Amino acid sequence: MPDGVSALPHVRSQVGQVLAEFLAQQRAVLPGAADELRPGLDALDTLLAGGKRLRPAFCYWGWRGTGAADCPELLAAAAALELLHAAALVHDDVMDGSDTRRGQPALHRRFAAYHAERGWRGSAAAFGTGAAILLGDLLLGWTDELFAASGLAPDALARGRPVLDLMRGEVMAGQYLDLMAQASGDGSVASALRVVEYKTARYTIERPLHLGAALAGPGSTRPSAITAAYTGYGRPLGVAFQLRDDILGIFGDPARTGKPATDDLRAGKRTVLLAITRARASPGQAAILDRCLGDPELDEAAAAEVRAVITSTGALAECERLIGRHLDQALGALAAAPVTAEARAALAELAVTATARHD
Amino acid sequence: MPDGVSALPHVRSQVGQVLAEFLAQQRAVLPGAADELRPGLDALDTLLAGGKRLRPAFCYWGWRGTGAADCPELLAAAAALELLHAAALVHDDVMDGSDTRRGQPALHRRFAAYHAERGWRGSAAAFGTGAAILLGDLLLGWTDELFAASGLAPDALARGRPVLDLMRGEVMAGQYLDLMAQASGDGSVASALRVVEYKTARYTIERPLHLGAALAGPGSTRPSAITAAYTGYGRPLGVAFQLRDDILGIFGDPARTGKPATDDLRAGKRTVLLAITRARASPGQAAILDRCLGDPELDEAAAAEVRAVITSTGALAECERLIGRHLDQALGALAAAPVTAEARAALAELAVTATARHD
Repeated sequence: MPDGVSALPHVRSQVGQVLAEFLAQQRAVLPGAADELRPGLDALDTLLAGGKRLRPAFCYWGWRGTGAADCPELLAAAAALELLHAAALVHDDVMDGSDTRRGQPALHRRFAAYHAERGWRGSAAAFGTGAAILLGDLLLGWTDELFAASGLAPDALARGRPVLDLMRGEVMAGQYLDLMAQASGDGSVASALRVVEYKTARYTIERPLHLGAALAGPGSTRPSAITAAYTGYGRPLGVAFQLRDDILGIFGDPARTGKPATDDLRAGKRTVLLAITRARASPGQAAILDRCLGDPELDEAAAAEVRAVITSTGALAECERLIGRHLDQALGALAAAPVTAEARAALAELAVTATARHD
Repeated sequence: MPDGVSALPHVRSQVGQVLAEFLAQQRAVLPGAADELRPGLDALDTLLAGGKRLRPAFCYWGWRGTGAADCPELLAAAAALELLHAAALVHDDVMDGSDTRRGQPALHRRFAAYHAERGWRGSAAAFGTGAAILLGDLLLGWTDELFAASGLAPDALARGRPVLDLMRGEVMAGQYLDLMAQASGDGSVASALRVVEYKTARYTIERPLHLGAALAGPGSTRPSAITAAYTGYGRPLGVAFQLRDDILGIFGDPARTGKPATDDLRAGKRTVLLAITRARASPGQAAILDRCLGDPELDEAAAAEVRAVITSTGALAECERLIGRHLDQALGALAAAPVTAEARAALAELAVTATARHD
């Protein structure tokens, strides 16, 4: 990595600023409704202040990799991906019934508490769900609004828009497949990997890189070679990233992950880690999984039992091996990619950051 | 109205065709996930085949009113409003717990039934809610996708996009205000009218007209005068439209409205009609309202009691008077609007259609 350049801090500070300014603008748009909307907008301020900004970072380095120069307009367009991601998280937390997000109460819980504190009529939970659905919808709309208002030229935006559309469709399809797999009880490794492909691998890494390259446009010498190289790097890295997330969701430190290490187990998430565990479990171990996974009342003792099964079946070690293998594959593709030296170094750093044992 | 021209049929047939083609295209985008997505996409086919196409019609005549000629690209952009509206309906039905929409089971109920038929694990209702949230999200994303792919020139789209953004923000804000008013028990006529302003008046009529005018652009002689005239026509008409909807929701024929005449009462909707009723109710009548409104088990006999209160307080007649007065105001603004004669006739026809006693 060249001296003085790091892959994330620049993107993080710029994206944070763009989002804060965008939210402040939005508060001014609906003056007639501002008072009642305040709790919602305050909650979004908090939500959007957090986050690792991985998707904007991949978009940014996807752009820089083509040889295009750093520019604030690109960072504004990249920041739109955080709005899309926040929308997906808000709706995901409603669907999973999660209590926390980024170390704070999930948005629907926050609104349910707001309702309960005021002793309002009807169900506080239903009010929380309704408000969170609407705020997620607002965030989805804002994605396009910020993207279009980024200041990039109309022809650049026209090149980027189909990638953004694809990305949005794929993440929704991925979440839908996840919901289906969970409900139908399809616990196979193949099914879990397919969900990962749509829900994470494409959406988190490959498509943001493609978006950056598409926005940069035909100025680079070999746009199609670059796009292919980003796929070669992005897909395996996305799998490694999700597998790390699977592990952190069950074994991670809640103070670092921002959510309890029992959430995924209680929700009975069909992760690749648990699919591998199930495939390797003895009948006795399978009985533990059947009893614990998806139990909304699961306590810490039962979580510890599940963790012991994951470890003793060798699934944890297998998952670590898979992460290593996919990371190597991504770095191999990156080494051969026709991108700038600076972007190559930054993407290598991002690959390591995104799959590190600690957040 | 000039011979042989009618305000709706042309828009309806074109918009129906655009939406059918767009959905068929989308099915081809996600081949890896197509099998599992089929029930969702089939449900959207049905949902999008229905609908009165009022928003596209207002967008179309907003465009035509400036003197711009009929063109398929404009109709494709206008059709995007149906995707936005379908998204709002799908999420609204989840929030209200509605069973039916357009005479069919609501999307979340359809998915809950799909889950139950297969004897899948977990809660069928939660599965239905999750799938409906995701499909609504997909529809929201598609709104921009169809709008951008309409074939209109980039500068036209750039003029239209801020109107579309505003429209989306306003409808979400309106729904949020509605949720708040319902939960906090604010049953005032003023509060109900404010919800109507955001949720219906701007979103259904004024903004689609403005969108059409913005897309047509500076070619017309007096764009700002036309925009102001559309506001003068659109806002009162929007109020009249919503008041008619309030009445149809309680007194309408379910075979025509596509939903049971008990839905609004069970949900305890804070409509203007019910706010007027409450303001005029005697203590005995207020007790009936308190007992019945918002009761999820409300039966037909109790609904008949509420209807009798609405009628005998004079609220129904007052609501009809308000519809008439707002309709007159809209038609007055239209008479003075600097639009083409053909658009004036079509918008007069649409005003009557949108506020007619029967759907």
